Amino acid sequence: MADSELPHRPKPEETKEAPAEGGDSKNASKNALKKAAKDKAKAEKAAARAAQEKAQAAAQDANDTAKHLYGPIPPTEDVLPSIRFADLTDDHYEKEVTVVARVDNARVQSAKLAFLMLRQQGQKVQAVIAAAEPISRQMIKYTGGLNVNSIIQVTGIVKKPEIPISSASLSHLEIHIRKVYMISEAQQMLPMQVKDAERPPPEGSEEGQVDAEGAPIVTLKTRLDNRVLDLQTETSQAITWISSGVSELFAEYMIKSGSRWIFTPKMVGAATEGGSNVFEIKYFKRNAFLAQSPQLYKQMCIAGDMDNVFEIAPVFRAEDSNTHRHLTEFSGLDFEKTFRHHYHEVLEFAEDLLVFILSQLKERYADKIAIIQKSYPKAGDFKLPKDGKALRLNYMDGVALLKEAGVDMSEQERFENDFSTAMEKQLGLIIREKYDTDFYVLDKFPMAVRPFYTKADPQDPRLSNSYDFFMRGEEIMSGAQRIHDIKELEESMRAKGLDPQHEGFDDYLNAFRQGCSPHAGGGLGLNRIVMFFLGLPNVRLATLFPRDPQRLRP
Amino acid sequence: MADSELPHRPKPEETKEAPAEGGDSKNASKNALKKAAKDKAKAEKAAARAAQEKAQAAAQDANDTAKHLYGPIPPTEDVLPSIRFADLTDDHYEKEVTVVARVDNARVQSAKLAFLMLRQQGQKVQAVIAAAEPISRQMIKYTGGLNVNSIIQVTGIVKKPEIPISSASLSHLEIHIRKVYMISEAQQMLPMQVKDAERPPPEGSEEGQVDAEGAPIVTLKTRLDNRVLDLQTETSQAITWISSGVSELFAEYMIKSGSRWIFTPKMVGAATEGGSNVFEIKYFKRNAFLAQSPQLYKQMCIAGDMDNVFEIAPVFRAEDSNTHRHLTEFSGLDFEKTFRHHYHEVLEFAEDLLVFILSQLKERYADKIAIIQKSYPKAGDFKLPKDGKALRLNYMDGVALLKEAGVDMSEQERFENDFSTAMEKQLGLIIREKYDTDFYVLDKFPMAVRPFYTKADPQDPRLSNSYDFFMRGEEIMSGAQRIHDIKELEESMRAKGLDPQHEGFDDYLNAFRQGCSPHAGGGLGLNRIVMFFLGLPNVRLATLFPRDPQRLRP
Repeated sequence: MADSELPHRPKPEETKEAPAEGGDSKNASKNALKKAAKDKAKAEKAAARAAQEKAQAAAQDANDTAKHLYGPIPPTEDVLPSIRFADLTDDHYEKEVTVVARVDNARVQSAKLAFLMLRQQGQKVQAVIAAAEPISRQMIKYTGGLNVNSIIQVTGIVKKPEIPISSASLSHLEIHIRKVYMISEAQQMLPMQVKDAERPPPEGSEEGQVDAEGAPIVTLKTRLDNRVLDLQTETSQAITWISSGVSELFAEYMIKSGSRWIFTPKMVGAATEGGSNVFEIKYFKRNAFLAQSPQLYKQMCIAGDMDNVFEIAPVFRAEDSNTHRHLTEFSGLDFEKTFRHHYHEVLEFAEDLLVFILSQLKERYADKIAIIQKSYPKAGDFKLPKDGKALRLNYMDGVALLKEAGVDMSEQERFENDFSTAMEKQLGLIIREKYDTDFYVLDKFPMAVRPFYTKADPQDPRLSNSYDFFMRGEEIMSGAQRIHDIKELEESMRAKGLDPQHEGFDDYLNAFRQGCSPHAGGGLGLNRIVMFFLGLPNVRLATLFPRDPQRLRP
Repeated sequence: MADSELPHRPKPEETKEAPAEGGDSKNASKNALKKAAKDKAKAEKAAARAAQEKAQAAAQDANDTAKHLYGPIPPTEDVLPSIRFADLTDDHYEKEVTVVARVDNARVQSAKLAFLMLRQQGQKVQAVIAAAEPISRQMIKYTGGLNVNSIIQVTGIVKKPEIPISSASLSHLEIHIRKVYMISEAQQMLPMQVKDAERPPPEGSEEGQVDAEGAPIVTLKTRLDNRVLDLQTETSQAITWISSGVSELFAEYMIKSGSRWIFTPKMVGAATEGGSNVFEIKYFKRNAFLAQSPQLYKQMCIAGDMDNVFEIAPVFRAEDSNTHRHLTEFSGLDFEKTFRHHYHEVLEFAEDLLVFILSQLKERYADKIAIIQKSYPKAGDFKLPKDGKALRLNYMDGVALLKEAGVDMSEQERFENDFSTAMEKQLGLIIREKYDTDFYVLDKFPMAVRPFYTKADPQDPRLSNSYDFFMRGEEIMSGAQRIHDIKELEESMRAKGLDPQHEGFDDYLNAFRQGCSPHAGGGLGLNRIVMFFLGLPNVRLATLFPRDPQRLRP
């Protein structure tokens, strides 16, 4: 039969199990998929029923005036140019367009009328199909019964709706369907609905609950378990663009500065930079480790006369921290640079880098930021310094500001402790209040809280030539002038309880024995920049497929 | 004493051990460093001698008219702007300049004359110091005795030499020294000399041999063992710029095309994509694996409606291959993209990407390429198609070209085998001869030699919609249209002996059960592109700190 390309699939509403309380697939358990797959008896029954329906449908199809206008996409149709939602304007009124989009929702209003909400990278447009030559009842039934999340190709006339469609992103137009073809069919039962994942779950809510409007709550866990669906929300689409933008802007600034893009090894022979928080790898017949940062290698590039280098690469931390801002794998934006007179040359370079990234994000991604703020309005616009220069305070200025606010540190604590997370956040609020900025820099941290390769402050060796960058009171970058003198470096190692004779340090220390220019640098966390810039409640929302001590999938 | 900032260090020629045959430090064993460090008795003797010399030097210094003009850099001097070698021109004749550079060579001609060869990122400039008010004999001795590889700050007058200095990169000028200060001193004994590493070792040569000109041969192993020194050569400097350039151009092209920069996880829960060639990690209380490619994740991004994505990230392969072109860790340039009508849309996009990268390298990095060709002239200029469009042949065209050249494959071999490396290289020569290009594409590989997610050719299921890219007859990219239909995908897995029910595939397969657009993509090896573009004999030369089954350091 030449009919084999027509839609003989069983229609969704004909085969799906009736939910216990007549609800829709919104309430489908996320485990339904696995259960269904295992239930072979049911599947066989359904197949028999489907075959019967197929025969009935074939009989109907004989009278279907529209049978070439819907169903599996015919090869001859495979040549229509399609338009993106983003490019649809008033100019398209009364014109025919073809779009490829997901079914966000499908609804049969009557035997003569059905509606689709179409979704393309989170944006929504309504489509409508009504009985009128050559549209058949079968075609309306097919369209209204399309499985949610299927990808279809729709051809139709763009019309201006009588009243704007508030649930659509493009509320001022709708598509009157002439053809609708299946490109990729989604299964009926989805573990969650994309539209439910669009709403952030209220704090403390649990899976299976409904929100104030009676809509199902999808927890962060369910969203991350089903991250591919979750990425389809308008908010996730926008967040992944911001993440892309941060790395693009970082690379752009670094390249413009004459910096060289480097790729340092992630598999290293020794756990030199701390030890306990490092992942171990089986490397053929011996062990290796995953690099906790490119620190030692980017310094070796400087010793290798590379002068100004940057890297964009994964960073691995075997910390058993289960917080809203810790990951075991994140994207590091690292740089290292020689200077001539003072490490503040590099510090200023880094400050300008951040001001560039954050201000350009606002400029280039204003529409994406606006979308995200609909879901996460709480933190408000990210405030940048008005004069385009970063606010830089000394660590001890921060101590003083906290003291004014009633949070005192003893003389000993000031030089031996870092701020706690709570103190950092409070300082962020104080600085926002006083200086009207969410981005600032603290310089001259106590030497006691910095790693061995940090240069001590020549004026006061209890302090160091090191700095942290903060966004909304949380750290996004740590950096410093590095010791480039071998004797000073070996002394610093010993002072920190490290043994310069340890074999694992050989290559690193030799780099300094062979001459090395004064240099400074820093390492930024991409995911944290995205998180704090947007005011997201969890770093996992700013990460494509997050990894933490509990999560290794998807 | 206010004299404490003057140069009381023992002079190199006064303290160094006389080499056995009066040779210079060129012949120093690479193990000298470790031996020396352990030989405490010697060190103490040397220290005593140094103290004695220091006392003598102090006496001499009292009469030194130039004592403020050399030695450790005084804080008051720390403010001179310095000029880069690259910016030195004829306009500087008779003008005073300050440069910061390494000592490539230091030589005392007489009590009144010494020469320095200065090196800055591989480029060389000669400096000379002659006795004349206020330059003292002590200052000349100090300058001529500087340890090779030390970083110094030199102030002097630029002069035009009577005859060009052929050993310098800037042969038309020299600097007449007025001041010379130490910024970072290198130890006397280096494991190898940077200038010896500038010459590639003749094939089959061994450590300790000398070449036809009597200069020491430094093998690849020694160079890689001492990679920081090796990076300082003019050739390595240029190669690392080309590597930087390839990733810059890749990112530039992708961003211009509207692609989103993604960061997929490198630690994964299951070894899904092959199994045996995967590194295992201890992940808290369980095991994880290092991703062999971002393949499954970039496809999941496409299923997540990201439409057009790219990644620049390390790729890990636990292959015990010890060849000139295999690494256990390399930099992958990956992309994945939806298409509308035919996978050739994506193939053409990728072909244009490579033409863009390779032609722009020639345009933007002509000077670096010229430097590298001095050391590696054999391969010659990389030939690109004259019309700016990639040459695309089918795999079976390649089979036919090889047959013409006398290399036949049986009917069975054609569909079940891939080309061997030798056949690929021969085909590269045939194509260069016939089409005058070193870059070309083979399309439609046999399905039998491609991974399970590859789309079969609908016209001939023995073939597939897949392609490889070649440079000088060696593969630099593999790519294909991917199967986006879940049933087809599960069948393909079973045909390749994989179990779609395996838990590790759940997340990947669910992405297709929930609807996915037709898409294609590819993965490029950055290190191989650099290697074959430049005609380097070994991929390790195109890698900052290479990793192979034998090498985990530096």
